[in-house]
Amino acid sequence: MRLTQVSNNKVFDGLHQQYQHFSSTLDCQMQFAVFLPPQAEVKPVPVVYWLSGLTCSDENFMQKAGALRMAAKLGIAIVTMDTSPRGEGVADVEDGAYDLGLGAGFYLNATQAPWVAHYQMYDYVVKELPELIEAHFPVNDQRAISGHSMGGHGALVIGLTNCERYSSISAFSPICHPMSSPWGQKAFTQYLGDGVKKWQQYDASLLLANTEALIPILIDQGDDDPFLDMELKPESLLKAIETRDYPLILRMQSGYDHSYYFIATFIEEHLGFHAKHF
Amino acid sequence: MRLTQVSNNKVFDGLHQQYQHFSSTLDCQMQFAVFLPPQAEVKPVPVVYWLSGLTCSDENFMQKAGALRMAAKLGIAIVTMDTSPRGEGVADVEDGAYDLGLGAGFYLNATQAPWVAHYQMYDYVVKELPELIEAHFPVNDQRAISGHSMGGHGALVIGLTNCERYSSISAFSPICHPMSSPWGQKAFTQYLGDGVKKWQQYDASLLLANTEALIPILIDQGDDDPFLDMELKPESLLKAIETRDYPLILRMQSGYDHSYYFIATFIEEHLGFHAKHF
Repeated sequence: MRLTQVSNNKVFDGLHQQYQHFSSTLDCQMQFAVFLPPQAEVKPVPVVYWLSGLTCSDENFMQKAGALRMAAKLGIAIVTMDTSPRGEGVADVEDGAYDLGLGAGFYLNATQAPWVAHYQMYDYVVKELPELIEAHFPVNDQRAISGHSMGGHGALVIGLTNCERYSSISAFSPICHPMSSPWGQKAFTQYLGDGVKKWQQYDASLLLANTEALIPILIDQGDDDPFLDMELKPESLLKAIETRDYPLILRMQSGYDHSYYFIATFIEEHLGFHAKHF
Repeated sequence: MRLTQVSNNKVFDGLHQQYQHFSSTLDCQMQFAVFLPPQAEVKPVPVVYWLSGLTCSDENFMQKAGALRMAAKLGIAIVTMDTSPRGEGVADVEDGAYDLGLGAGFYLNATQAPWVAHYQMYDYVVKELPELIEAHFPVNDQRAISGHSMGGHGALVIGLTNCERYSSISAFSPICHPMSSPWGQKAFTQYLGDGVKKWQQYDASLLLANTEALIPILIDQGDDDPFLDMELKPESLLKAIETRDYPLILRMQSGYDHSYYFIATFIEEHLGFHAKHF
């Protein structure tokens, strides 16, 4: 597992670094970024994995979320990755649609041609990337997972199906019930085919209804988000737990939209939430 | 002076908005952004004008600097603008160089063809834009000016030549002595021609040596900045005031580079500095 450093910036007394490596899971070159707080010079620190939304790379969150000040204060590392496999030979859509193919891996393991060859983002995020991070950087085995939109869907699905690996989950504007949203239906049809069973493995609302573990979840959702009603459907998560006492906090934020300005406003509270549960 | 709103995002309980307007000074369509803190709903607030570096638009600072949390807390509006005139008919370099023409207006009034027609950024920033802001938004007449790199040069030059209009100046990694730097010499030769007198009007070190007003200045400069020795030369500012007691704070920041990660680390202190002087 060889890492090639792409950039290195001092920030808030810590370090932001980008690396490339060949992913055996995705069978292509990948890039990720890591923020190491100053505390990591002294002892291993916990990690928040951030999963970005459609079209993003490892860079959007690190540059736009304004998260590093609080991460440095709390002593938390942050890892961000690309949103799909990339490079020559990796399948993409011919019409250039932003919601399928490159930049739109949906954090699942594809089973259908032509996607099956590289689109295995679930395994990459759950297994290969944390192994790499834990082998090369001063982090401990305390992990949390968070994300935005498609990445909020990824954080919920990966967190809920790996409760032993993550101490908490958070999300901004997640796709909560992809089986009933246009983005989710399009992606699942292409990547997974028609089998409903396979879809259910990647639907946060269904997973939440059936999980026994009680991993704490914090979700922020702007009520001025243009994707709220059609694509995001946070009410489906509340419905999934209406008959029991699950530690889910869903906050509807008045006047906020789907942008990184929304994320920046509340990211420090999300980091505080994860810090409390490490 | 008609403004067309391009975007509107709620952030930190305030608003980030982008507008386009026809600039009579630059004779072209221009875009700017404004952050209005929540306090602006109740009473007019002071404004920090931010001048960006080479290649930037109104967006870089708003998205990457992580400034809005503290601006919201302190009740300060922020205005960012483009770094040159833009659009059809606006002169540019043929070789696509990033340090002249589009995205590289150097905040001066060009006197040479082909630049003289539109490249009048000094007047735009000093006069037209503040007039527009003060006519359309809930701000008072307290102004500060700040910037990065080429924009740090702009902030120093505009602040020092308009001491009655700004209560304080700050800069990150400014071009402090453009008459002796490759970027500055290239830009001044093209925009101003060969006359040394005209160059002196836009050289912060010469202006500082000759100014009588004592407008407070805060500068942060990373010592791991690849442009430090050749282009930025902060020591020339210290030399300009070595024989007198000028309120200039120059902080060399160990290990920091020229990026927005550096700006993000210290921007809250710059806003606090400006707030103290409003």
